[in-house]
Amino acid sequence: MSTSTALISGLIRDVPDFPKPGVIFKDITPLLASATGYRAAVEELAASAPADIDVVVGMEARGFIFAGPVALELGAGFVPVRKPGKLPGDVYTQTFSLEYGHETLAVRTDAILPGARVLVIDDVLATGGTIGATAKLISRLGATLIHVSVLMELSFLGGRQHLSSLGVSDCSAVLTV
Amino acid sequence: MSTSTALISGLIRDVPDFPKPGVIFKDITPLLASATGYRAAVEELAASAPADIDVVVGMEARGFIFAGPVALELGAGFVPVRKPGKLPGDVYTQTFSLEYGHETLAVRTDAILPGARVLVIDDVLATGGTIGATAKLISRLGATLIHVSVLMELSFLGGRQHLSSLGVSDCSAVLTV
Repeated sequence: MSTSTALISGLIRDVPDFPKPGVIFKDITPLLASATGYRAAVEELAASAPADIDVVVGMEARGFIFAGPVALELGAGFVPVRKPGKLPGDVYTQTFSLEYGHETLAVRTDAILPGARVLVIDDVLATGGTIGATAKLISRLGATLIHVSVLMELSFLGGRQHLSSLGVSDCSAVLTV
Repeated sequence: MSTSTALISGLIRDVPDFPKPGVIFKDITPLLASATGYRAAVEELAASAPADIDVVVGMEARGFIFAGPVALELGAGFVPVRKPGKLPGDVYTQTFSLEYGHETLAVRTDAILPGARVLVIDDVLATGGTIGATAKLISRLGATLIHVSVLMELSFLGGRQHLSSLGVSDCSAVLTV
């Protein structure tokens, strides 16, 4: 573990039984409250990006906290993927399963130019539901998902295998637990 | 209007009748999709900050897109104010009125050290409900709200007067419409 990842890791707090019993929640608020910690997280995520990224995509809401700064760091555009009803105009939507029920994500139909090289940034890769749905939205836009980079991968939840089954195999994590 | 604010203004799209008839929605997605536009917005917001800010506060979800990068730019910590149920541990909550119904915001009770100098960043100042509730949360934490800076002020909605009635008078906007 590098100095930078040790700093980041030490600023993420495990909260047992949140949001429900048996789940250990990864609380990133101490990381964000540390100017050096937040900066290190953004730099590690940006460093994982392949060359010539046109667009960074981040998902509401926590994804915005990292995807926006990474887009600025790379000099790329930033495209927010949002919950339904938040974006005006024509949108594509994608519904996916959560442990209980479903969630839907939306993106404007003109959000990304066809052929653009896209990087997806998120805080956590858990089961891969959110990132998988985002990958499908990027595909519907005719853009190319080049890489997925997350701050933390919860590898025991099998998200990487789920993404691989969708054809998304170029994926990296700053921390793996 | 400076070159920078003209660039920003030209990348914000008016969408009539969204989210409901009679409202003109200010769509920031073209601004975010432009690497130079998004960078200019963050730089203008950061430039409006008084010296020695310890913490930048941003509100879920669009506020995160600007508040995070401004915190990084200033070398300050970033504290997210969230919707209920998203933050683990003890939180303070503040409910405020919207045109129809109510909304609640939450912040961890240990999110900001008492006495810290706080900057609030948001995309839009409309009626001031969101920022007003956030100001009350900052006050409950014992921190000092030094300045509020927004990308766009919709001055005809009287948000600045509402904030002033709460004792929040140090407020600036990159664009005023």
